[in-house]
Amino acid sequence: MAGKRRQSVVVSKITPDGIGRYPDELVIEEPLSIELDGVTICSTMRTPGHDFELAAGFLWAEGAVAPESLASIRYCSGDFNTVKVTTRGPKRDIQPRIGTVTSACGACGVDAIEHLTQRLNRVQPYEPWDLAALASMPVLMRQGQVLFESTGSVHAAAAITKHGEALVIREDIGRHNAADKVVGRLILDKTPPTTEQALVTSGRASFEMVQKAWAGGFSALVAVSGVSKLAADTARRCGLTLVGFARDGSGTCYSPIL
Amino acid sequence: MAGKRRQSVVVSKITPDGIGRYPDELVIEEPLSIELDGVTICSTMRTPGHDFELAAGFLWAEGAVAPESLASIRYCSGDFNTVKVTTRGPKRDIQPRIGTVTSACGACGVDAIEHLTQRLNRVQPYEPWDLAALASMPVLMRQGQVLFESTGSVHAAAAITKHGEALVIREDIGRHNAADKVVGRLILDKTPPTTEQALVTSGRASFEMVQKAWAGGFSALVAVSGVSKLAADTARRCGLTLVGFARDGSGTCYSPIL
Repeated sequence: MAGKRRQSVVVSKITPDGIGRYPDELVIEEPLSIELDGVTICSTMRTPGHDFELAAGFLWAEGAVAPESLASIRYCSGDFNTVKVTTRGPKRDIQPRIGTVTSACGACGVDAIEHLTQRLNRVQPYEPWDLAALASMPVLMRQGQVLFESTGSVHAAAAITKHGEALVIREDIGRHNAADKVVGRLILDKTPPTTEQALVTSGRASFEMVQKAWAGGFSALVAVSGVSKLAADTARRCGLTLVGFARDGSGTCYSPIL
Repeated sequence: MAGKRRQSVVVSKITPDGIGRYPDELVIEEPLSIELDGVTICSTMRTPGHDFELAAGFLWAEGAVAPESLASIRYCSGDFNTVKVTTRGPKRDIQPRIGTVTSACGACGVDAIEHLTQRLNRVQPYEPWDLAALASMPVLMRQGQVLFESTGSVHAAAAITKHGEALVIREDIGRHNAADKVVGRLILDKTPPTTEQALVTSGRASFEMVQKAWAGGFSALVAVSGVSKLAADTARRCGLTLVGFARDGSGTCYSPIL
């Protein structure tokens, strides 16, 4: 059967009164590969459960299957992160999607971390962050959210220093794109991110956002929304400070656990 | 130069006092293809602007480029939705991502609509929706958001009928996945979505979410957050009713314009 959908963890709550340890629950994030008649069509980071529905619904939206053409849907033997779909009747021509989702096809979450760990070094040692300062960073980012002001619906990301200086702020309909634009600006300026800087996102901290912060060279990731279990695990593994639900100086720290 | 980042439109505001027309601004969403040394590595739906940064930052996170190996970044001739990156020195082995982002590689937003229009018929004629009822649907969905209650950070989608019955509610860390699971459940039950039903999402209505509602067979899409210009254009083109910022019976209708 498919895996868990949430898991209990211990976190540090950042409040105006100080920092304390509390139990919390995190949503599970794992990659799922969808195979159609033997060809891998897509890999997506998803919460386990209802995976056959996910495969059927995705392929329906793509025009790749109709109810009468579905012959079978099953997990790959021993692998609950790969769903194999077979059809009957004439095959439609569908191309694999070329996208931006982590390409950990068929791998479980642990493998995805292993893959990154092989490629990247642990975050270099750094002076511990002032967690309340991290939790205040979205306020600093807000000053650059011009598109958000007028449209009410666009993500933002920023590189902010320990001294509270917002080096780059970028907005995009996609939160990953906004983060890429921030890192890209610093790369193009030949001043890559350092451990004296945090990456701030207006959205959630998924596994891929942790990857972008880690690979970028930051030592902290701050998210206005929540984090996934895989994001928290990866942050602890690589030594990245991870704060979620960061709002006006309050928030939750998932890595390190104090 | 790259395209606009936002555009003025006329919308219908749904309030407890009735419905009125107002000017509004929508964020632009268009596909961007990133080519590395002649190979298309990824296609992502993004807001135009800072596209070279996006390409550099994305490739950096993937481990595909380093600052000293970047030789050139430029737009494809006459196509501001394709960025070509070339490197010097030894080439790293990087595979194109297989993901779930719309595969309208190198196409502009208009082409993406054209592509869908060729594959799908206009939404079948249907009794106009009660917009206030649509704007209330997220309240009905909330009863099934069990994971959200405990984790505070997971998306949801639902199929809800004109009579206010929530047929399927699904949660997932990805908003697209949640929508796929809802449609997939109905497909697997051999009761595909109908024009008597709306697709509800806890997130934003992007182009791809409109595609999922349209291809699914719904006649309305309701989003708790905002919508992109491309989503609104596509909804109008196919005859899908589109409501955003739906909260407690208030919201904004982007299609049709009353």
